[in-house]
Amino acid sequence: MTKNIWRGFASDNYAGVHPEVLEKLADVNAGHQIAYGDDEVTAELSEVMKKHFGKTAQVFPVFNGTGANVVSLQAMCRPWEAVVCAAGAHINVDEGGAPEKVAGLKLHTIPTADGKLTPDLIETQAWGFGNEHRAQPKVVSITQSTELGTIYTPEEIRAIADQAHKKGMLLHLDGARISNAAAALGVPMRAFTAEVGVDIVSLGGTKNGVMAAEAVLVLNPEFSDVIKYVRKSAMQLGSKMRFISAQLLALYENDLWLRSATHANSMATKLYEGVKDLVRVEKPQANALFPYLDPKVTEDLQKEFKFYVWDHLTGQVRWMCSWDTTEQDVDAFVALVRAKVS
Amino acid sequence: MTKNIWRGFASDNYAGVHPEVLEKLADVNAGHQIAYGDDEVTAELSEVMKKHFGKTAQVFPVFNGTGANVVSLQAMCRPWEAVVCAAGAHINVDEGGAPEKVAGLKLHTIPTADGKLTPDLIETQAWGFGNEHRAQPKVVSITQSTELGTIYTPEEIRAIADQAHKKGMLLHLDGARISNAAAALGVPMRAFTAEVGVDIVSLGGTKNGVMAAEAVLVLNPEFSDVIKYVRKSAMQLGSKMRFISAQLLALYENDLWLRSATHANSMATKLYEGVKDLVRVEKPQANALFPYLDPKVTEDLQKEFKFYVWDHLTGQVRWMCSWDTTEQDVDAFVALVRAKVS
Amino acid sequence: MTKNIWRGFASDNYAGVHPEVLEKLADVNAGHQIAYGDDEVTAELSEVMKKHFGKTAQVFPVFNGTGANVVSLQAMCRPWEAVVCAAGAHINVDEGGAPEKVAGLKLHTIPTADGKLTPDLIETQAWGFGNEHRAQPKVVSITQSTELGTIYTPEEIRAIADQAHKKGMLLHLDGARISNAAAALGVPMRAFTAEVGVDIVSLGGTKNGVMAAEAVLVLNPEFSDVIKYVRKSAMQLGSKMRFISAQLLALYENDLWLRSATHANSMATKLYEGVKDLVRVEKPQANALFPYLDPKVTEDLQKEFKFYVWDHLTGQVRWMCSWDTTEQDVDAFVALVRAKVS
Amino acid sequence: MTKNIWRGFASDNYAGVHPEVLEKLADVNAGHQIAYGDDEVTAELSEVMKKHFGKTAQVFPVFNGTGANVVSLQAMCRPWEAVVCAAGAHINVDEGGAPEKVAGLKLHTIPTADGKLTPDLIETQAWGFGNEHRAQPKVVSITQSTELGTIYTPEEIRAIADQAHKKGMLLHLDGARISNAAAALGVPMRAFTAEVGVDIVSLGGTKNGVMAAEAVLVLNPEFSDVIKYVRKSAMQLGSKMRFISAQLLALYENDLWLRSATHANSMATKLYEGVKDLVRVEKPQANALFPYLDPKVTEDLQKEFKFYVWDHLTGQVRWMCSWDTTEQDVDAFVALVRAKVS
Repeated sequence: MTKNIWRGFASDNYAGVHPEVLEKLADVNAGHQIAYGDDEVTAELSEVMKKHFGKTAQVFPVFNGTGANVVSLQAMCRPWEAVVCAAGAHINVDEGGAPEKVAGLKLHTIPTADGKLTPDLIETQAWGFGNEHRAQPKVVSITQSTELGTIYTPEEIRAIADQAHKKGMLLHLDGARISNAAAALGVPMRAFTAEVGVDIVSLGGTKNGVMAAEAVLVLNPEFSDVIKYVRKSAMQLGSKMRFISAQLLALYENDLWLRSATHANSMATKLYEGVKDLVRVEKPQANALFPYLDPKVTEDLQKEFKFYVWDHLTGQVRWMCSWDTTEQDVDAFVALVRAKVS
Repeated sequence: MTKNIWRGFASDNYAGVHPEVLEKLADVNAGHQIAYGDDEVTAELSEVMKKHFGKTAQVFPVFNGTGANVVSLQAMCRPWEAVVCAAGAHINVDEGGAPEKVAGLKLHTIPTADGKLTPDLIETQAWGFGNEHRAQPKVVSITQSTELGTIYTPEEIRAIADQAHKKGMLLHLDGARISNAAAALGVPMRAFTAEVGVDIVSLGGTKNGVMAAEAVLVLNPEFSDVIKYVRKSAMQLGSKMRFISAQLLALYENDLWLRSATHANSMATKLYEGVKDLVRVEKPQANALFPYLDPKVTEDLQKEFKFYVWDHLTGQVRWMCSWDTTEQDVDAFVALVRAKVS
Repeated sequence: MTKNIWRGFASDNYAGVHPEVLEKLADVNAGHQIAYGDDEVTAELSEVMKKHFGKTAQVFPVFNGTGANVVSLQAMCRPWEAVVCAAGAHINVDEGGAPEKVAGLKLHTIPTADGKLTPDLIETQAWGFGNEHRAQPKVVSITQSTELGTIYTPEEIRAIADQAHKKGMLLHLDGARISNAAAALGVPMRAFTAEVGVDIVSLGGTKNGVMAAEAVLVLNPEFSDVIKYVRKSAMQLGSKMRFISAQLLALYENDLWLRSATHANSMATKLYEGVKDLVRVEKPQANALFPYLDPKVTEDLQKEFKFYVWDHLTGQVRWMCSWDTTEQDVDAFVALVRAKVS
Repeated sequence: MTKNIWRGFASDNYAGVHPEVLEKLADVNAGHQIAYGDDEVTAELSEVMKKHFGKTAQVFPVFNGTGANVVSLQAMCRPWEAVVCAAGAHINVDEGGAPEKVAGLKLHTIPTADGKLTPDLIETQAWGFGNEHRAQPKVVSITQSTELGTIYTPEEIRAIADQAHKKGMLLHLDGARISNAAAALGVPMRAFTAEVGVDIVSLGGTKNGVMAAEAVLVLNPEFSDVIKYVRKSAMQLGSKMRFISAQLLALYENDLWLRSATHANSMATKLYEGVKDLVRVEKPQANALFPYLDPKVTEDLQKEFKFYVWDHLTGQVRWMCSWDTTEQDVDAFVALVRAKVS
């Protein structure tokens, strides 16, 4: 129906839906199912998620990543509490203020070089406990892979979790691109979440080939009972839940999540290999490159391939690969870069 | 995939997705599209909606009905303002407090006999203008068809709109079942919205056969520019928007909305004809019946067909028909009712 | 300095400050004191309050009654929870929507004849536990004396507390006029609060002769640790706290609270005796009368004595006596009423 | 009544109330006055404020500085808008998250060397207009004198106001210590507010010798009509308003504000002269010094004079002078510093 078929490197949410996801939607469509989550598909998803994250893991599907993040954080915080996060975290810069506006959350933000927090960095904001003049730090929120395409090792996350818990705080992981991180690390998702002390995960789906489905994945059983209320009052409870759950089921019941993420990551690596001698760029850790370009080059390239300028002052741009990026896409783009930078 | 195929009379959101909607999702899936609404599908939906509601109508797809309602109301109200609505309105009783919790909205509620407000009823709460001790009434919100299955005539809505506007207030219409109302009235949707003074409509989709798609439909151009911000900060902005828009497009670009609603309404009428001599029940105005049953009968019926008890004290229950209710479903249910009440 | 010295029957907050309160302010003024509550005056107030309400009582002074109510309720509720209260409760009709707007609280309201809740009335809204579509009832809030001048017996409050606790709910008492209630009942304040199961009290001061001081009085130790944070983030923490505490100390360290309230109540009784044969009016239970007047009479009376119309439809007005109402005020007003109604 | 009379250098809100303020409270105490601001004292205060800030200035007394700030900012922002401020601004670090929690405000924060914003610094956060993913920058908030004791010149504020207005933004000035700034600059308060484009001022009182009274001072008439509603729903409307207004009247109707601020500033200068050769410290611009001390010295000094450690990492402390600081206090403290650092 859409007139021109094109692909670019703007975002993994410019990509469409993986065919296996569409098939699953058709599969679950027959007859009635109880609304709001008491359906067979959601029950099956729950079992699948326990296989990935352990027996106490509980999954609460929601509509989008902002929803997953805010529901997670609101469940963990009382009204006077606050979240410690990177200044560049999605929750701070890309959610239209939803954490503050929907949930009254205060964000204590920390500048970072590469999007990653460390115990030392966290220490700069995780203080003032007992002093009511300071919104009380309660949650550390990290993103995996980060907004700058970098990846935490399981050990790094464990160190942050230990620090947080020692201070009476909790650890949230924004996993909008959790699959890409697992693929890059070559470990199961639980290796850097359930097994190292993460309390709640925002589990991604949309960016890795589903239509509109993410989830609040509760690893700390203390929060199992409250998420359903927060999800509802935060307007993230779908009525025909089976179709949200079906998307996540298609992604996670077999290896689609890993196949797609591995592919996206490898396309980023291929792109890097093609352009590393042409432009200033770091080796990608997951599925995104952040090269520095002359604005004129950026302008020329954008005439044929969409992508975002990340920082107008430095000329840094973002090239994102997705589950549907093809080798031909990469080859064509590399050829164009070569033509424009020479 | 789901093991047992069954249908009941619990809710139109227990029903699945109309095949034409699934087809449309596949149709729009090729290649990339700009995320967050700047895609071709959403553009096409915008044109379709102007045909239904007039040239100044603007459509902003969202995930669910609570989202459509809260985004609409928050856009219309300043922090000190309030919404006048029926005590039984969905926004008051079925949204987990989202209007208060997400948007800080005060609801001035009015008991009603049949779910419908009237100018006289509205007068009981639309007062105190200029007195800061009273959260300032700013919006009247009505539901069409109502939570009790009743329907406003266009004239009734015009009277409410005129009253609201005369007082400096605005009119919101929760159209979760707007198609059923239009089908029952035999008029286009604009006849009881755009043409009679409604300012913003929550346009339904999910209950009439789509998967998870509703919209804020702005008829008063004063609000055209602000909805996009509220939608984002209220976590109702989908990234792969084309798939939300595609669902609404499938429903509204041809007569699917009307076919499905007309069918659901007619099934309710057929059900009424079958049981009217067996139980105490009003003639349905749209797609729902609200009979009064002996609790024992309710229990017996629920063993074979799911439906909700509406009021434990009176024994009132709700039987809802949907786009996929079949004549056989109705016949079988009527037979069961006959068997159990005799 | 003010040009005309007058008194009326409009409200106990039209009255000035008792001389003993002004004296106390001067008494505590010498030198520095630690700000925000770690001062000697607040420490002394804490001891005084333990004498009134028991050893575990904790007092947190705030600026006004709305502040005391909202801080109390927010401390007791999680984001998805709600408050059950009378439709005519101050929190519902006279706080500009602050509970909803500051704290996201949903109020489940109940119409009452006389401002008082009963277990049966509470039952009409205290339901839906576990169903996330319903903002979860968590607190019952009652007002003593009520907005309609009526008074709960200790037994009535105990019955409500028992019911609330049995349901896993809590009981809040808005004691803006708690002194008037205690004086009328002839019992200590703890007899209808600490001793019968109230969890948190909004302790009044301003209406009983102080300048601007109320308090959150915590009787359920579960909330002792959290109030300070809520008070701060809700903007109710005074810096020069000693002067807020001093007002309450003046009121409660000796019998000023009781003397003033007893006086106000007795003036209301005297007024009742003077007018009971002239107008339709119930015997006052505390310090307010709610007579029904012809609008013409109301207008005539208001030319000489200020008071409020309570209900334009019925002609009901409110006559409030305060700590500074004199016998001469009452005599003059009675004479005027006699002149105007004859 | 308080047992030990002491003074220190911890904060100007450790100080008591100026005797002229107490006198004024007694002066306005006779008879009744209409509650909530329609009293004679508030009317008089309004006139006084017009003399200070110009004929269109409107004053809305509130309880505390956090209240003044949040009411001001909430009135200026729609739900999707945000405030640009210094990272060290009181609204960001010392209000328990009230801007976020009460009003859902997003703060876009900027690190500063000396607490002062500049157009260049503001530019780093005042961007993204029209992009709904970014909470829309709407207000610049500056503090005068700043949290670090520095002072903006009128020209500096004019440059910020011009920049803000050019971008469609507004300028808020947190004037908790506005008197100290005016005294230091030797200009009337309007010279760096009304005359250079400030839209709303949080007008200080408490820190300069009153008990508990601040005000929202509206200079941009666009906001004249809405403050009263925000003040009420934000729980900052006092019932016996005459006593709040009286405090501000005592301060501002004659030169008490200037006398007190000039005195506090001069005490800081005297203190500086006494210690400048003993410790590392900048010359104070208003009434505070921020010296760097060895932790051992800090500890020794704090045994006799209270003051705050400002930065544990650097050893920076804050010494604040107030309206009641005496020459003897300064001499004694200087002698102690001399004894401890040698």
